Order: sequence, then C-alpha cells, then structure tokens
Amino acid sequence: MKTRVFVSLKASVFDPQGRTIVEALQSMGYGSVSDVRQGKYFEVDVDTGSADEARALVSEVADKLLANPVIESYRVEVDE
Amino acid sequence: MKTRVFVSLKASVFDPQGRTIVEALQSMGYGSVSDVRQGKYFEVDVDTGSADEARALVSEVADKLLANPVIESYRVEVDE
Repeated sequence: MKTRVFVSLKASVFDPQGRTIVEALQSMGYGSVSDVRQGKYFEVDVDTGSADEARALVSEVADKLLANPVIESYRVEVDE
Repeated sequence: MKTRVFVSLKASVFDPQGRTIVEALQSMGYGSVSDVRQGKYFEVDVDTGSADEARALVSEVADKLLANPVIESYRVEVDE
C-alpha cells in the first residue's frame, strides 16, 4: 500500500533553509514570493491488509524515525 | 496564496537515503515496510492575483531553484 508522509517544522520554529530560499528568490527577481518553509517528504510502501493498518503503522514510523516531534509535525496520507 | 511543492527523485534514480531508512526500519522490527523514497517538501506563500498565476510562478521557481530537473520531478499544489 502506498503512503506519503509530510514532515514540516512547527510554525514556532525558525526555518533558516526556507529563509535562505526566499532571499535567493527575491534576488532572482521573484519579489512576489513572501515565505518559504522547507520540509521533508517520504513515499513509504507498506504491506498491510487495510488502509487503517497502514495509517497506524506509518504514523508510528513517522513518530519514531522520520520526524522529530519536538520541533516537527507530520501528516500521513494513505492511498485507499 | 499558499502553495506546496513536492520534489522527489525520478523512479530511475537510486535513493540511498530511502534505502537507509528501510534498513533501519527493518532492523527496528518494521518488516512490513517494503520501500521508502525520500524527497523534499516546500510550503511557498506567494502574492499573486489568481491560483493560475500562483501555479505558473511556483512551477518556474521549482524548475529553477527547488528541484534539479535532471534527476528530480516535482508536483505543485495551490490552495484555491
């Protein structure tokens, strides 16, 4: 079963990578870009019987390995 | 306007980060995880008049700065 995990920094955490990208874009003439936040994206294939099991498994994996819950939040999508 | 860009390695490109994650998960007992591919995720805020303009702008930005079109593909989502 195909799942996707999106990990992003919590809103209160400063994102220097995103800041650098905004500054680069503005110096390239893209003044209408007002903010960029960078995160991580994972495509995770799992062998489970149901979408619910896949969601539970991948959420556990995200909590333990893919995201740092202190500073990051994540969202899981499962192809039904 | 809020947009999101998902950048992932093309299917033909080997992903050592993803491979390492699968191996770590299997050694942690998550044998039902069969594959992981790691990509990048960007939240890009732009000041444009319409969703179509936002999509065109962010696609250009993704092509020029966020993704390496030789080995990566990207997908743009715009909040309507």
